Amino acid sequence: MGNVKKELGARVRELRKGRGWTQEELAEAAGRHWTYIGGIERGERNVTVQVAQDIAHALGVNLEELFRGVGRKTKKR
Amino acid sequence: MGNVKKELGARVRELRKGRGWTQEELAEAAGRHWTYIGGIERGERNVTVQVAQDIAHALGVNLEELFRGVGRKTKKR
Repeated sequence: MGNVKKELGARVRELRKGRGWTQEELAEAAGRHWTYIGGIERGERNVTVQVAQDIAHALGVNLEELFRGVGRKTKKR
Repeated sequence: MGNVKKELGARVRELRKGRGWTQEELAEAAGRHWTYIGGIERGERNVTVQVAQDIAHALGVNLEELFRGVGRKTKKR
């Protein structure tokens, strides 16, 4: 199984860079500290859905788009 | 802005019922207590991405599908 925190972090970084933003700029837009954004991008934070929503808003996407490709490697049950 | 916790809860309920599962059955599949699943469905829990992933797995969807339509009413920035 993929690491969902790392995958979300990579996705946030991808979307942020797609906007040409620094971590500081995303942090400001999302109302969080830049060190927290850095931690998310490194996959060190198990963020809540509410925080994910704030970041999605800041990036101009919805949650469905934010989670595109994240956690796709599902465990077979 | 919509309440992302309530919207996610409604989405979980919709997917669960689509499988014809009780809360107890989803709880068992997701490795959580059924009262916790009930709290999520009522929008009372600010779940982490890791928990959302476990629930998505249990429901046989990925995170992108789980969050379809959730938090769509984005705040204009």
